[in-house]
Amino acid sequence: MLTQKTIKQINSLNQKKFRQQTGLFIVEGVKGVGEALKNKAEVELLIIEDEHKNQKDLADLARLAKKNKIPGEFCQASAIKKIKTTDTFPGVLALVKQPDIILDDVIKNTSMILCLDGVRDPGNLGAIIRTADWFGINSMILSSDCAEIYNPKTVRSTMGSIFRIKVWSSPELAASLSKLKKHGFKIFGLDLSGSDLAKIMPCDKTIFVLGSESHGLSPKVASLCDKMYNIKGKGQTESLNVAIAAGILLNKIAS
Amino acid sequence: MLTQKTIKQINSLNQKKFRQQTGLFIVEGVKGVGEALKNKAEVELLIIEDEHKNQKDLADLARLAKKNKIPGEFCQASAIKKIKTTDTFPGVLALVKQPDIILDDVIKNTSMILCLDGVRDPGNLGAIIRTADWFGINSMILSSDCAEIYNPKTVRSTMGSIFRIKVWSSPELAASLSKLKKHGFKIFGLDLSGSDLAKIMPCDKTIFVLGSESHGLSPKVASLCDKMYNIKGKGQTESLNVAIAAGILLNKIAS
Repeated sequence: MLTQKTIKQINSLNQKKFRQQTGLFIVEGVKGVGEALKNKAEVELLIIEDEHKNQKDLADLARLAKKNKIPGEFCQASAIKKIKTTDTFPGVLALVKQPDIILDDVIKNTSMILCLDGVRDPGNLGAIIRTADWFGINSMILSSDCAEIYNPKTVRSTMGSIFRIKVWSSPELAASLSKLKKHGFKIFGLDLSGSDLAKIMPCDKTIFVLGSESHGLSPKVASLCDKMYNIKGKGQTESLNVAIAAGILLNKIAS
Repeated sequence: MLTQKTIKQINSLNQKKFRQQTGLFIVEGVKGVGEALKNKAEVELLIIEDEHKNQKDLADLARLAKKNKIPGEFCQASAIKKIKTTDTFPGVLALVKQPDIILDDVIKNTSMILCLDGVRDPGNLGAIIRTADWFGINSMILSSDCAEIYNPKTVRSTMGSIFRIKVWSSPELAASLSKLKKHGFKIFGLDLSGSDLAKIMPCDKTIFVLGSESHGLSPKVASLCDKMYNIKGKGQTESLNVAIAAGILLNKIAS
């Protein structure tokens, strides 16, 4: 039985302010919650819709949670109605603790880091995290004006990859990149003025930075880049969606 | 001055039923409306927010519309409030006639066609149309269960590319592909079981089919494929976002 207090807590986590205050975030759906449990994220509470609890995938999640001593609640339709989710309630959700990630975690055992500068759309950020996971890139750095990692829309579009990739939000991206250059990282940017990405040569210790679709890389970040690359097009449109550009880039440098 | 009737008509076009009945759709924003005008789409009405009419980009659009004898209205904040848009009103919108596209248009002067089977998310469909435009692919075929081409979210995420790419919605995709095979087209599919896409050889008269993220290609369509390809990953996630997969594919075969 879900208390009013818990429902209120869940709904408050749709706001960034409360995610920051509590250090928690919401994961919705079988795929996301399953990945949280499998990847040993700190799940504080699992909520399963009572009506669907015998459904195999949900029953499996409930069993896995029980095994890991994670508190679980079965919840009736009347309570579900009070929970605000990004879409219709997908049968299951979890309250998860945000991991403490610092810059050192992101650079440890890593030869390639994907970095985003001002990517504001949570759906794009989530899709990029998922794509990084596909290509085995484990480390990402975000500028402070990127979409928030724990926004429900970001989390949903990572499809669970958020629990495998270390994503660190830098308070001052240019300063962080300067520091990493001193640690021997080369910094490459994606920019319309750059050389053809198809001709890039493999390189150890690389940070690849993508900017926003409308503004590109910020001037400070651009000035730190050792080289710029571009995805050559043939048509008349002016730009690619940033998540698609990231996919093409990763396919080239990480596959 | 916008009449109640016009406002009602605009708002009705948020529904597929009315888009089909009237053969019209809505384009929002400077970029989309600008591309509609530049690419000689049949714009029936242009609406510009009165408050911003002296803004250079909007004034340019108004001039271009006037030159092409397209009816335009300047519209006050009180009327704007009554218009339902996908987000906040972006200063300008247009009512545009859906072009009559038939299969013959799509295959004319084309050696490569991108085909989508069951891609239901309008944002993904729009991003794919925009990416096709980037790589100079001018023809697309959609299965009937794909997102609708003229859904406002699809239109918005094409960023105007919808006015350059011929997109045909097939009532029965497998039957259409069978017919195209008889016209000499090879059909390649993207599937997790396929060969490495990195090794694909250029080929004339090709149709490349992508399925939905959750269900892949439908069995009938899969059985028509001459060969399957796959984008090799290294991480642990099970699939790529379909728009990102399309981007990687097009970068490989069309750049």
